[in-house]
Amino acid sequence: MELLTEPQISEELATVPAWTRDGTAISTVTERKDFRDALLYLGAVAYLAESANHHPDVAISWNKVTLTLSTHSAGGLTANDFALARQISALS
Amino acid sequence: MELLTEPQISEELATVPAWTRDGTAISTVTERKDFRDALLYLGAVAYLAESANHHPDVAISWNKVTLTLSTHSAGGLTANDFALARQISALS
Repeated sequence: MELLTEPQISEELATVPAWTRDGTAISTVTERKDFRDALLYLGAVAYLAESANHHPDVAISWNKVTLTLSTHSAGGLTANDFALARQISALS
Repeated sequence: MELLTEPQISEELATVPAWTRDGTAISTVTERKDFRDALLYLGAVAYLAESANHHPDVAISWNKVTLTLSTHSAGGLTANDFALARQISALS
């Protein structure tokens, strides 16, 4: 998987307004009703991640779920990150 | 829920060898086979957390699950944190 260029990253970011870039990664924070609902949401994210064979880092604090995507094998952002980010955004 | 004293914390820590203290919290890191297995593990942790009505902060990175417990309402460590830590440790 090839690293995206800066213009490509800008273009891709425009397709996922809920995600913000932080260097070589993109992340999104979602607030759910409670811990149980956060876990249900994570179940859906995990299903998409397994299907894509690409996995976000996950942080859960009570009802707040933070997802972070980066292609570690490539050392930064690739089309795979944005493809999964779009799928995850489509859940909401 | 009352905050534990330092001697009480030391005593409780001795009952959960997989957990380390970091100020007002305790945490443990577990490595599972893969992301899917990490999520299965989290399912069991979530069940215990819901039953206890006490919820760890969770971080997942591929197969690595970090759990952090603290009683935010009390501003530090209480018996509830160690009770849940013991239940979680019993899963392994």
